[in-house]
Amino acid sequence: MSNPIYVLNGPNLNLLGVREPNIYGKETLDDIRDRCERRARSRGLALVFRQTNHEGELIDWVQEAREAASALVINPAGFGHTSVALLDALKTLEQPVIECHLSNPASRERFRRFTYVSLAATGVVSGFGAKSYELAIDAAADLVLAGPEA
Amino acid sequence: MSNPIYVLNGPNLNLLGVREPNIYGKETLDDIRDRCERRARSRGLALVFRQTNHEGELIDWVQEAREAASALVINPAGFGHTSVALLDALKTLEQPVIECHLSNPASRERFRRFTYVSLAATGVVSGFGAKSYELAIDAAADLVLAGPEA
Amino acid sequence: MSNPIYVLNGPNLNLLGVREPNIYGKETLDDIRDRCERRARSRGLALVFRQTNHEGELIDWVQEAREAASALVINPAGFGHTSVALLDALKTLEQPVIECHLSNPASRERFRRFTYVSLAATGVVSGFGAKSYELAIDAAADLVLAGPEA
Amino acid sequence: MSNPIYVLNGPNLNLLGVREPNIYGKETLDDIRDRCERRARSRGLALVFRQTNHEGELIDWVQEAREAASALVINPAGFGHTSVALLDALKTLEQPVIECHLSNPASRERFRRFTYVSLAATGVVSGFGAKSYELAIDAAADLVLAGPEA
Amino acid sequence: MSNPIYVLNGPNLNLLGVREPNIYGKETLDDIRDRCERRARSRGLALVFRQTNHEGELIDWVQEAREAASALVINPAGFGHTSVALLDALKTLEQPVIECHLSNPASRERFRRFTYVSLAATGVVSGFGAKSYELAIDAAADLVLAGPEA
Amino acid sequence: MSNPIYVLNGPNLNLLGVREPNIYGKETLDDIRDRCERRARSRGLALVFRQTNHEGELIDWVQEAREAASALVINPAGFGHTSVALLDALKTLEQPVIECHLSNPASRERFRRFTYVSLAATGVVSGFGAKSYELAIDAAADLVLAGPEA
Amino acid sequence: MSNPIYVLNGPNLNLLGVREPNIYGKETLDDIRDRCERRARSRGLALVFRQTNHEGELIDWVQEAREAASALVINPAGFGHTSVALLDALKTLEQPVIECHLSNPASRERFRRFTYVSLAATGVVSGFGAKSYELAIDAAADLVLAGPEA
Amino acid sequence: MSNPIYVLNGPNLNLLGVREPNIYGKETLDDIRDRCERRARSRGLALVFRQTNHEGELIDWVQEAREAASALVINPAGFGHTSVALLDALKTLEQPVIECHLSNPASRERFRRFTYVSLAATGVVSGFGAKSYELAIDAAADLVLAGPEA
Amino acid sequence: MSNPIYVLNGPNLNLLGVREPNIYGKETLDDIRDRCERRARSRGLALVFRQTNHEGELIDWVQEAREAASALVINPAGFGHTSVALLDALKTLEQPVIECHLSNPASRERFRRFTYVSLAATGVVSGFGAKSYELAIDAAADLVLAGPEA
Amino acid sequence: MSNPIYVLNGPNLNLLGVREPNIYGKETLDDIRDRCERRARSRGLALVFRQTNHEGELIDWVQEAREAASALVINPAGFGHTSVALLDALKTLEQPVIECHLSNPASRERFRRFTYVSLAATGVVSGFGAKSYELAIDAAADLVLAGPEA
Amino acid sequence: MSNPIYVLNGPNLNLLGVREPNIYGKETLDDIRDRCERRARSRGLALVFRQTNHEGELIDWVQEAREAASALVINPAGFGHTSVALLDALKTLEQPVIECHLSNPASRERFRRFTYVSLAATGVVSGFGAKSYELAIDAAADLVLAGPEA
Amino acid sequence: MSNPIYVLNGPNLNLLGVREPNIYGKETLDDIRDRCERRARSRGLALVFRQTNHEGELIDWVQEAREAASALVINPAGFGHTSVALLDALKTLEQPVIECHLSNPASRERFRRFTYVSLAATGVVSGFGAKSYELAIDAAADLVLAGPEA
Repeated sequence: MSNPIYVLNGPNLNLLGVREPNIYGKETLDDIRDRCERRARSRGLALVFRQTNHEGELIDWVQEAREAASALVINPAGFGHTSVALLDALKTLEQPVIECHLSNPASRERFRRFTYVSLAATGVVSGFGAKSYELAIDAAADLVLAGPEA
Repeated sequence: MSNPIYVLNGPNLNLLGVREPNIYGKETLDDIRDRCERRARSRGLALVFRQTNHEGELIDWVQEAREAASALVINPAGFGHTSVALLDALKTLEQPVIECHLSNPASRERFRRFTYVSLAATGVVSGFGAKSYELAIDAAADLVLAGPEA
Repeated sequence: MSNPIYVLNGPNLNLLGVREPNIYGKETLDDIRDRCERRARSRGLALVFRQTNHEGELIDWVQEAREAASALVINPAGFGHTSVALLDALKTLEQPVIECHLSNPASRERFRRFTYVSLAATGVVSGFGAKSYELAIDAAADLVLAGPEA
Repeated sequence: MSNPIYVLNGPNLNLLGVREPNIYGKETLDDIRDRCERRARSRGLALVFRQTNHEGELIDWVQEAREAASALVINPAGFGHTSVALLDALKTLEQPVIECHLSNPASRERFRRFTYVSLAATGVVSGFGAKSYELAIDAAADLVLAGPEA
Repeated sequence: MSNPIYVLNGPNLNLLGVREPNIYGKETLDDIRDRCERRARSRGLALVFRQTNHEGELIDWVQEAREAASALVINPAGFGHTSVALLDALKTLEQPVIECHLSNPASRERFRRFTYVSLAATGVVSGFGAKSYELAIDAAADLVLAGPEA
Repeated sequence: MSNPIYVLNGPNLNLLGVREPNIYGKETLDDIRDRCERRARSRGLALVFRQTNHEGELIDWVQEAREAASALVINPAGFGHTSVALLDALKTLEQPVIECHLSNPASRERFRRFTYVSLAATGVVSGFGAKSYELAIDAAADLVLAGPEA
Repeated sequence: MSNPIYVLNGPNLNLLGVREPNIYGKETLDDIRDRCERRARSRGLALVFRQTNHEGELIDWVQEAREAASALVINPAGFGHTSVALLDALKTLEQPVIECHLSNPASRERFRRFTYVSLAATGVVSGFGAKSYELAIDAAADLVLAGPEA
Repeated sequence: MSNPIYVLNGPNLNLLGVREPNIYGKETLDDIRDRCERRARSRGLALVFRQTNHEGELIDWVQEAREAASALVINPAGFGHTSVALLDALKTLEQPVIECHLSNPASRERFRRFTYVSLAATGVVSGFGAKSYELAIDAAADLVLAGPEA
Repeated sequence: MSNPIYVLNGPNLNLLGVREPNIYGKETLDDIRDRCERRARSRGLALVFRQTNHEGELIDWVQEAREAASALVINPAGFGHTSVALLDALKTLEQPVIECHLSNPASRERFRRFTYVSLAATGVVSGFGAKSYELAIDAAADLVLAGPEA
Repeated sequence: MSNPIYVLNGPNLNLLGVREPNIYGKETLDDIRDRCERRARSRGLALVFRQTNHEGELIDWVQEAREAASALVINPAGFGHTSVALLDALKTLEQPVIECHLSNPASRERFRRFTYVSLAATGVVSGFGAKSYELAIDAAADLVLAGPEA
Repeated sequence: MSNPIYVLNGPNLNLLGVREPNIYGKETLDDIRDRCERRARSRGLALVFRQTNHEGELIDWVQEAREAASALVINPAGFGHTSVALLDALKTLEQPVIECHLSNPASRERFRRFTYVSLAATGVVSGFGAKSYELAIDAAADLVLAGPEA
Repeated sequence: MSNPIYVLNGPNLNLLGVREPNIYGKETLDDIRDRCERRARSRGLALVFRQTNHEGELIDWVQEAREAASALVINPAGFGHTSVALLDALKTLEQPVIECHLSNPASRERFRRFTYVSLAATGVVSGFGAKSYELAIDAAADLVLAGPEA
């Protein structure tokens, strides 16, 4: 059977449903984990879902995913704009890497438009709130199930 | 019943399967239309699918969508980076607008990183080749079927 | 008798009264045409008033104005910021060219501050809503009636 | 009866008719004052018309206009490009503020393209020589006579 | 026998001989067509020579050239500086693409220095007035007659 | 006994309580003068408190402070962003110079982020409304009473 | 009784009194903690005072402050210039946030002029060495004791 | 006999000999006036020598010089970098305009490198301390005595 | 009879056929000299053909060409991007100056896009490998044989 | 005897031999540690060799090196480009600091060209793969053994 | 007796009187040498006066001046804008270095505004045509005769 | 036996030990040549060591090294920042190219941070004074002795 899909979340996403709900919506990160698990299970895939405020821990997990994951979905939050180290970790993966954002960065402050993560991403899904994660899981599942030839 | 989803394609996408296949893949635009129609039908929605090399025609169609569409999926191709007029047309829509790209712009020339279209888009899906369209249809269908309150 | 004043309108202005009324006001483009005609008639001048979403058509009309117009009033809308081709067409006119905007571009997004059109314009009127057109007609009439020596 | 329209002129405009006449024309500032008074009187409005080379005095007058003017027409000349203090004074007015220039700044040196004043202006008229003032008076009169609801 | 050389002309070139003759010279576009035909005929090649003010039409013709031309000479005029869509169309050609300008862009406004077209061009000829076209035809003929190995 | 603390206020601060109260609060400059005097008196120090819309007068006062003040608190308002001459005057002081702002410039327009004044300031207090002045007086008093060795 | 004021210190501040004393002074961080505690106690408020070299830990503490603090004073040191994640954490607080620096950043390297933290700060105090902290505590106490209406 | 040479000095130059003597030297402005008078007298020319901290006054004097001076030597100090209004005044002079600085701006802060004044200056002398004035007087005298044909 | 055409080659072109042949082709500079001589002879013109790695020598030769050449073809290689001195030398020529490059600079590193030489060039030919020289000779011959009136 | 040389390695260097071997080579970090120890031992010096993905831990180690190391060799990897906090830690060291990179940053993406670390480094060695470390150890040993006077 | 003053001239100045006389005047470099010699002799100083088109030769001469000159006057012409090597040579001189230009660079192309030479110059004289040299000789003589204490 | 290592030095390095010794140290270039020869000899390699102030000569030597050297160590001094021609010469070498600087450019003026040379260098050593050369020789020897496979 395939390795699980890793879904990794960056800083402050543990506050989802609390922080600026007019931008990010009212669902909590636990709600999103549930959505993701249902969606992955429906595709016959397991899920690893984590969050951290520590850049180093996020990099450790990305390195772990090199061995243990079939695909990586990452919402880097604030680290996406500033961490070359995270980019370097992601570039070591041969699995699909999918960048995922709750809101559309183009409609926010200028410094949120660019992410280093996108330089290592297979694809990007942004702007659909919690649904962005489900679409990202779908994309990951398609790529995993089709195999490296797809 | 809901209005159809409009899927509008910008310049040179009629050459898909021919132009730089190492970047854009081998599927033709007709193949993508088939994929989109199947996906929309499975959600109980009709589809309008068009392509043009003429910016003015694309703007006319966006204006038509104001009355006739339940949601708009747009792959603006080269117009995305240069057309303020297209942005202005999209901003008149109250329906969901989903920007869709075959490849991840972050991995291409610098002038392809920014699109005016993203300033009017609800969300963005990019980098999954022809599958980007299917994910965009899914996102549109979710938003249409959930209604404006979703 | 003098040639008519040409009033040419760029993309999306056909939606006036609908699109972002808090910025552009509630009058339609037909209302503005009526205003312009009354104002021109009061100065003893005829009017040609058109709108298009097609950059090429707008350029064709500017070229037509070279032979047929006594002055040109142009609201280039989105094309003003992006069309070197429109600038080149306008530079071939020896008649007065008056750039006209409903809102004051300085109070909007940064990319709306510069227009290529202003590089070929005799003068600019902006920020007075539909009244901008009337002031532009007045300015055009003054220049036409005073003759090239004025 | 309405308060008068204030027409305030910035540095070096006292030299009009002398300084670079190929750009600014041969009329003196007194000629322009006469034009403005005739135009205002024809609309049933009084006029206050002043010039200064002192930024502080110009700011004092703008503050005075807060109480005493129905509208403000300002040709800030060189101060328009450099004075944040003048912008701050203008932003305290609730009356219409109309920026007015003899020449079209787009056709001159690059540093003349931007004015802080435009960030506080209701509208702008530029490029018609002395006629710019008359059009500005017209615009001001329309706004004053229509009242704040217009 | 070889396919014809396509010579495509962008916006406002139909006004040649009229527009800013001090920059572009007094020959009309018909004169240039005659020059080009003579030059091509002397090399045993046919010619297709067209002009349009419509970006979409120009893109359509470039796509047509993919099947029908042995080489493409293009004077994109104003579209060269602004059209990513035109660049994308040109990049789909495997035939030689030769960019051609009447004047040397380096001696004109700053925004005329860069053309997207040059990113897809085999070579560039500029600054020799109508003779630029003849040199471009020569270069195209050399490349066509030498074959892909040259 | 020590020289008084000079508190100098730049353009438009005479309108405090009137101008954009949602940004600057409802207190007038006289209210602030009272606060400052109470605070200075409680530290055993006298106060000189002035406002001007004239850059030259502000520079004259800064030069006067070289002889007459024990410390200088300055809210340069709009002059802070544009006046190299004011910076040069401040750099001639050996006494403490404290820059003081009602609002936090980082939350306003981009051109308000930098002040020349900060290049000559010992320290900065901003964002606490009228309380910014009291904190600045406190800081000034600490530095004055501790003497140059502090 | 009110929650305590949190005073959080970023990287390398544990070396205070050691590192570049000509810029930062000779007091240690323990000395500053003592100052802060005395000052807070004199206002009837408790204090939490911490330092870390780990960005993630600093973010954890800011999140903790959401529940446990009445106000937050933060000297982000090097993280202020680079951490969008820290900014995002700070933006979730409804309590006053006061940015505090020992030296005036305007007098140091260019990259120290901007801090993301200032985008979320109520106010800023900088340049007074260890006294900056006391002034920040004062400002925080004023805001806490006055209540949200102040 | 010729009109006098005007020597106009901008803000803070009244503090010469006091302000940053390591950059500007120990001579006072009166010392420099004496030098200039001796040098002018030796060439048979009279001198007008003034200083002001007020930009408006400096502009008034420049305008006065249009009628009364044979040449203008100006040390604009801080106004040189920021005043478009001063530039506009200087551009109305037909007499020689000589910009003069005590220190070489290239060796100071970056924002001191450009002066608007230099756009209107016949020539520039900088970096020789008080001697810069004498050289400027020499240059002015040469130009005045040679007449407009020189 | 006419003076010869000067063909001057800048640094490293003596290595042609060796250096990065995938960009510059396999022909040596001697091969190119032969091509140029044949082409010039066929037009009845003599040729001077030189190469140097020394900027000063290249400038000397350009100055020599002022007296001795009927036209100048120059491939400045690396000096084109960096030498203002070379530009100044070229601007002293009244003969035609034709800039010539083997490859199309637009397809290489960004710093190769601009050449100072183009500011003094009548026209430019680039991108056709060794054939660029022949086209440049043709253009030069046309201009020389047509005379200064052409 | 001297304190040991500290060799500190930043994020993802634990993957050496795995990650992008065409850029970084096939040796693992353990191999490099062996090289470094041999080289240090040959100079009579001990070695401390560590790697971390956590910026805070790297800063802790740099602070530890202030007491315990005779010199510091640091390969900051991704943190070099983004961490002001790391720079601040390094600036507190009085020992030699040597920046070391496997590849030459000039040949990679633009954002890898600048490192904050270089602002605090005595010297830099880059581009020699694993040998860069040995050269850095040599340089460190020379500086340590020569003593602070060297 | 003092060493001679070195007057060094950069590329193309040998063409003076020929090249763009509307900018540089009609005097030849020999005329200027005569002027300089007369002026130097009147101050009791000898002169060395040279010109070269070779940057390396100019650097050699500057190095020679370290031993042989009492002061250096340099008109670097085009090398001033581009040569860091020339700057480095000039920085090794302890004698006065005076930069001298015929025209005022501020009134020419943007890339002529900055010279590396000015970073090493004691002072600058520009804009007075051939008289610039005489003023520079005067300034040099004053500095030489006053001695290093002046 | 292997070809010698070429060590080429750019402008002003002949003044080493004299020029700004606080930055570059007191050793002369002859001292450095001795160091380099000893180091090379100890590795069994011969050395060619040269210096020039002439860019063209330096390029000639680099071209010579293509045939005659086993590796190239280059301290380009001021030419490194400005010479595209030198870069082009270096890119023709297949041998190792090692850039070497006495001081760490990051601690000097901004325009010294970038060198074109680094775009062609295998590796870089900087900041260790004369020892930089020895480390560079070591690196070169390692690469030469290991052969192209290393």
